[in-house]
Amino acid sequence: MKEIKDKKDNMEQLKKLFIMPNSPDKFVEFGHELLEMIHDFFQEKGGIHSSISLPELSEIFNQTSIPEKPQLIKDVLKEIKEKIIKHSVKVGSPYYIGHMISAIPYFMILLEMIIAALNQNQVKIETAKASSFVEREILAWLHKLVFKRKERFYKKNIQNPKVALGNITSDGTIANLTALLVAREKAFPPDGNFPGVRVTGMEKALKHYGYSRGVIVASIRGHYSIRKAASILGIGEENVILIPVDDHNKVDIKKLRRKVRLLTEGKRRKRAKIIAIIGIAGTTETGNVDNLEELLEISKEVGAHFHVDACWGGAALLVDEYKHLFKGIEKADSVTIDAHKLFYCPMTMGIVLFRNEKDLNYIKYSSQYVIRKNSVDIGRFTIEGSRPFSCLKPWAALKIIGKNGYKLLFKHAKNSTETLKAILEENGNFEVLNEPELFILIYRFIPKEVREELNLLLEKYKSNKRKNKELEQKIKKINCLINALNVKLHKELRRDDTTFVSRTKLESTRYRPYNIVVLRAVPINPLTTEQILRKIVSVQASIGMKLWKEFRPAYLRLLEQEERRVGLV
Amino acid sequence: MKEIKDKKDNMEQLKKLFIMPNSPDKFVEFGHELLEMIHDFFQEKGGIHSSISLPELSEIFNQTSIPEKPQLIKDVLKEIKEKIIKHSVKVGSPYYIGHMISAIPYFMILLEMIIAALNQNQVKIETAKASSFVEREILAWLHKLVFKRKERFYKKNIQNPKVALGNITSDGTIANLTALLVAREKAFPPDGNFPGVRVTGMEKALKHYGYSRGVIVASIRGHYSIRKAASILGIGEENVILIPVDDHNKVDIKKLRRKVRLLTEGKRRKRAKIIAIIGIAGTTETGNVDNLEELLEISKEVGAHFHVDACWGGAALLVDEYKHLFKGIEKADSVTIDAHKLFYCPMTMGIVLFRNEKDLNYIKYSSQYVIRKNSVDIGRFTIEGSRPFSCLKPWAALKIIGKNGYKLLFKHAKNSTETLKAILEENGNFEVLNEPELFILIYRFIPKEVREELNLLLEKYKSNKRKNKELEQKIKKINCLINALNVKLHKELRRDDTTFVSRTKLESTRYRPYNIVVLRAVPINPLTTEQILRKIVSVQASIGMKLWKEFRPAYLRLLEQEERRVGLV
Repeated sequence: MKEIKDKKDNMEQLKKLFIMPNSPDKFVEFGHELLEMIHDFFQEKGGIHSSISLPELSEIFNQTSIPEKPQLIKDVLKEIKEKIIKHSVKVGSPYYIGHMISAIPYFMILLEMIIAALNQNQVKIETAKASSFVEREILAWLHKLVFKRKERFYKKNIQNPKVALGNITSDGTIANLTALLVAREKAFPPDGNFPGVRVTGMEKALKHYGYSRGVIVASIRGHYSIRKAASILGIGEENVILIPVDDHNKVDIKKLRRKVRLLTEGKRRKRAKIIAIIGIAGTTETGNVDNLEELLEISKEVGAHFHVDACWGGAALLVDEYKHLFKGIEKADSVTIDAHKLFYCPMTMGIVLFRNEKDLNYIKYSSQYVIRKNSVDIGRFTIEGSRPFSCLKPWAALKIIGKNGYKLLFKHAKNSTETLKAILEENGNFEVLNEPELFILIYRFIPKEVREELNLLLEKYKSNKRKNKELEQKIKKINCLINALNVKLHKELRRDDTTFVSRTKLESTRYRPYNIVVLRAVPINPLTTEQILRKIVSVQASIGMKLWKEFRPAYLRLLEQEERRVGLV
Repeated sequence: MKEIKDKKDNMEQLKKLFIMPNSPDKFVEFGHELLEMIHDFFQEKGGIHSSISLPELSEIFNQTSIPEKPQLIKDVLKEIKEKIIKHSVKVGSPYYIGHMISAIPYFMILLEMIIAALNQNQVKIETAKASSFVEREILAWLHKLVFKRKERFYKKNIQNPKVALGNITSDGTIANLTALLVAREKAFPPDGNFPGVRVTGMEKALKHYGYSRGVIVASIRGHYSIRKAASILGIGEENVILIPVDDHNKVDIKKLRRKVRLLTEGKRRKRAKIIAIIGIAGTTETGNVDNLEELLEISKEVGAHFHVDACWGGAALLVDEYKHLFKGIEKADSVTIDAHKLFYCPMTMGIVLFRNEKDLNYIKYSSQYVIRKNSVDIGRFTIEGSRPFSCLKPWAALKIIGKNGYKLLFKHAKNSTETLKAILEENGNFEVLNEPELFILIYRFIPKEVREELNLLLEKYKSNKRKNKELEQKIKKINCLINALNVKLHKELRRDDTTFVSRTKLESTRYRPYNIVVLRAVPINPLTTEQILRKIVSVQASIGMKLWKEFRPAYLRLLEQEERRVGLV
């Protein structure tokens, strides 16, 4: 009997968890505690990534079974504070300029509270009423920002449930996947008795239309989600044709044109169908934008879907100053933009937009129990099924920050990028390796003496008309050493952990085709000041010079050997 | 000059938005306001969906351009209150028992605050430290819950970065897509010079392995995301083979076995490769569970990946009482579960688990700038790229609610389902049409007189050895009328808007193969009481009887006509 009574009591306790406390006191009490926890975390002096080692973390999170007994909320919050918050990455720190992540406005936390409390499911109108209309409204805003169609078009379609101007997705990868899925359907649409690739699969689609393969063409700087999408879509990774870039990290239009010609000429059965050509508007590695107008023209010539991956840069369309970079985007077939990047929203939300309001009808789904055929449910047009009311965040942010506010944010980001570049150049022991367009700076640590030597060698190499193999070897060997130095430097910076930039490898520098290890800064955090940038560079310079002492003997030996070798020849 | 100064001031203002206010006062002030807004919403008497019409909402959300000027947070919050919260669906209301959604524990809101404030990106360790370990830990918990592998296995793999026991996804559709993507890779893996389907695409994979098609086999009750996944994966919707169900909404094993035999026999070039067989553990429409053991056996026989879609029911594994339903799941290759369903988490989060810890290596990705090859980044194994720290919610919920708490929640849900069934049967003007296993009840409104008539007719029909066409016609016509009545009833219930159940169409009732329009209740909200269930039924009965007055003359005419017709024959 006692047990039954206990159970009943427990259930009453449990039920209370499901009721928003009648007076907000209890909630506010927890809220207070929480905010203090978060504050402590941000103000704590320690490093950006916390000094705990990965093996140590493995020891903390090693419970293999689900807990049996309920614990008090306050105990679990304490556990979260001590085990999780303490060892989280301070991605909002102004010293963290290594990835496409920044501090976010604190009102985002309020918006998350609203989203969770309302708990709408965007899949259908029965579980999302006003929120469905908010989603369509912000999609229209962004559609207009990108495609600038006539006011009449937006008046007609902003809340037209028969079409979708785009999708809100969980992230940029799903957004790109959606765009390429639509491109695939458009490449192999229904035709007479052929019901379209979505029904038959890739094999029969190629057979019906008489192509040897379907391909996607993009720059080598394209995001890895393109390869991923081609693999998921049954197109195959080998059918993603990556075209080299020029010295400004923009796709080489001549090479692209030549490749497209090769792919599409010859006998039909041997020809490839170009499913999509992708322009990158803000490459992940360097932030540069392809020549979209040229890509548009080529896409039209070969009848390919023209997709622009503007996951990084898209938000810059809010500001006149950047619009010239995107010329041609208004004629693209689809465009993707991430809200958690330059819209300064929290993790994560992607957006995909289609110029033609009927394009998403190619992938329309329905079922009996949800998203009925003639319903007004947004879920008919999305790859995902259940979806949260994420779009409230950029919707409210665009109101609270406004176009004008974003203009200031991007101005600050641009200033930070330029300031960082100036500080690096002033220091002398760094080499800047890209021409930043959208707030990404690529550089490496290279002691002055090596830089000067390399400058000389390069000049000599270029002035020779014939290829000088020895000189090439020498340059390569020096770069190999500097690569190792920068890998080591990046590791040491991680150990120091007071500042953070990321690291990658690039072939598109003046040393091409040799791959150069580079540091990558994305200084978009509005709280990052010039003083902070100076500090970041000074830490890198001082650790770099310390490491150089280890590397220098090898460098000198290398110079000597090379001289001897050249002497012998 | 003034303008420049203004701009600077504005930037200073803007910066303040990005700093967590130093004293939590300001934040708490907004928080207070917000909580009151949310409270008002939940306590407001009005209907579940708000009485505003869709055209009226279209008028509210019809701004086609992004706002230029910044607005105050408090003004935007007010706008959110008046335009959005007021017209949101009260999915947490105990009178809302129509979809797989419920009230959620209020601590979820606190967790969302933490997630947004930390703003970790799970894609890589540089943007997610402790949170990567939390994700691996909860995946191990759930893996053990489902697959019960040896403790040694979990000790070894819980934090082993070389493998992934599963993925946290944005929802169940992406979870199912991930499982079927892995199944596709396993069906057409690398083989000699053939680099695998992910590289070549579907067409060359079928050619290399010499199959005419690749198919996925599931029950007709399977979620529409299966068809969607087949289309996305380039397999094709026509290659999803849907097998009828028995009278308990479980896949008909005999028919499935026969179909599989047909697909796989004959000459190899004409044969289909069975990519996956899918068992449903909690169908979306009826909550019933397939015979997983039998499906497992057939999958083994034909060498197919065995996937279990337990998006709805999976959480019930927490409670011994339900385990018998899932027998065989521990041998499945992959299993999907939704956190926003029976784990009572907010929208949205899916989970996919793989019994073999190496299966996700089939879809491993890497790139230079993020998720490097030898990194420990979780993003190497996921379809999505950037991902939020969503898994904190079920991780904390499993601690705060505990297995014991979930046991009580499911006990309550089961009681509610049984109580609802009893109330409907007691009323007499309803017909229950499924045997609930996991908290979903299917029924329809049917006046007593019609029900009795149909009972008689059915008995007569079944006692005849030869098919009686006339009788069949008569039953069909009556059902057609009752279908129309239930569609109308559902619409009227939406207008009344004090209660909510959903509606669908089923062929698997005692009237099969004729499709019956049914009402669908999912009474999982712990705040739904017997009194509330009585109220829901009484509203349906009273509106139903009112409508019946309109329908009855047609019914009487139908009986008369039929009698005359039968008389003439």
